[in-house]
Amino acid sequence: MNWLDLVALLALGQYFLFASLVGRARGKYGVKAPAVTGHEVFERFYRVQMNTLELLVIFIPSLLLAAKYFPANWVAAVGAVYLLGRAVYAYAYVKQPAGRALGFVLSAGPTMCLLLMALVGVLRQA
Amino acid sequence: MNWLDLVALLALGQYFLFASLVGRARGKYGVKAPAVTGHEVFERFYRVQMNTLELLVIFIPSLLLAAKYFPANWVAAVGAVYLLGRAVYAYAYVKQPAGRALGFVLSAGPTMCLLLMALVGVLRQA
Amino acid sequence: MNWLDLVALLALGQYFLFASLVGRARGKYGVKAPAVTGHEVFERFYRVQMNTLELLVIFIPSLLLAAKYFPANWVAAVGAVYLLGRAVYAYAYVKQPAGRALGFVLSAGPTMCLLLMALVGVLRQA
Repeated sequence: MNWLDLVALLALGQYFLFASLVGRARGKYGVKAPAVTGHEVFERFYRVQMNTLELLVIFIPSLLLAAKYFPANWVAAVGAVYLLGRAVYAYAYVKQPAGRALGFVLSAGPTMCLLLMALVGVLRQA
Repeated sequence: MNWLDLVALLALGQYFLFASLVGRARGKYGVKAPAVTGHEVFERFYRVQMNTLELLVIFIPSLLLAAKYFPANWVAAVGAVYLLGRAVYAYAYVKQPAGRALGFVLSAGPTMCLLLMALVGVLRQA
Repeated sequence: MNWLDLVALLALGQYFLFASLVGRARGKYGVKAPAVTGHEVFERFYRVQMNTLELLVIFIPSLLLAAKYFPANWVAAVGAVYLLGRAVYAYAYVKQPAGRALGFVLSAGPTMCLLLMALVGVLRQA
């Protein structure tokens, strides 16, 4: 099993799920496109998606670049923590934005870690 | 011809075009940075760009990962539907947000399809 | 030294920095999540991050694809201009949004350049 590709694809799928929940919340809370404000709970779903997007654009390239310099399965394991962290983040944020810290740390942390691993890999080769 | 790379690059170029249209709409409808609201038509251009961004971050990695497991030209063909769908989406959304469903399905559908193809590819190898 | 990977990773790190500054500005200017408006300076930091995100999703794939068709170090050099341009852009935008043009040109320009290089590379192989 190519765990690295699996983690990358699950991260993309997880983000797609968050985006779908925004679409559903649009209907449920009566926020018509192109507006992205107007109901507090809709805005939470929207911020979960946006914040995940903001992290995902770092996560995917860092994951793939880190795997050029470190064993793919170690890299995939760090990526798996991100997947868990984002799930915790989304659940907590929608319930109550103030409770989003743990999930944030558990997903931004692994992302930072992958970026640093890749940087260390590049610099060690110099 | 590397059709896969061509489709990836055209998707990036199409998104760049949508982003440029937002810049132009900023001037035309008098929405000064950093504001992103204030005129309905500007907001439509902005939402086209944002929605395309939201999809593009799934589309590009899914396209490239799917091509690791399926013939590149099949994958490129699915990607070409996305390009068409996004063009339809942008045109319809700016005209009237309520009419964006067809273009959305024709671009989110192929993106989902590529993501599932890549997932099937990974899991089949297990 | 793999300059190409280094430039890609620095671009991701730079974006991470911009995102962190948004988090800090949230506290400093009292803009509580999920709101993304409410204080002009906060909105500038937020727009710097968003605009960088919008460009980064084109920059990273274009950088990597251009390097399939042109010498990696040339491609990395174009990418280095982007890094500088984004730094100028962020600094100027936060100070005064109207002064963001130079940094924008110095980062959107290289991104466009990389996208065109990759396109030329694909089409020349045809």
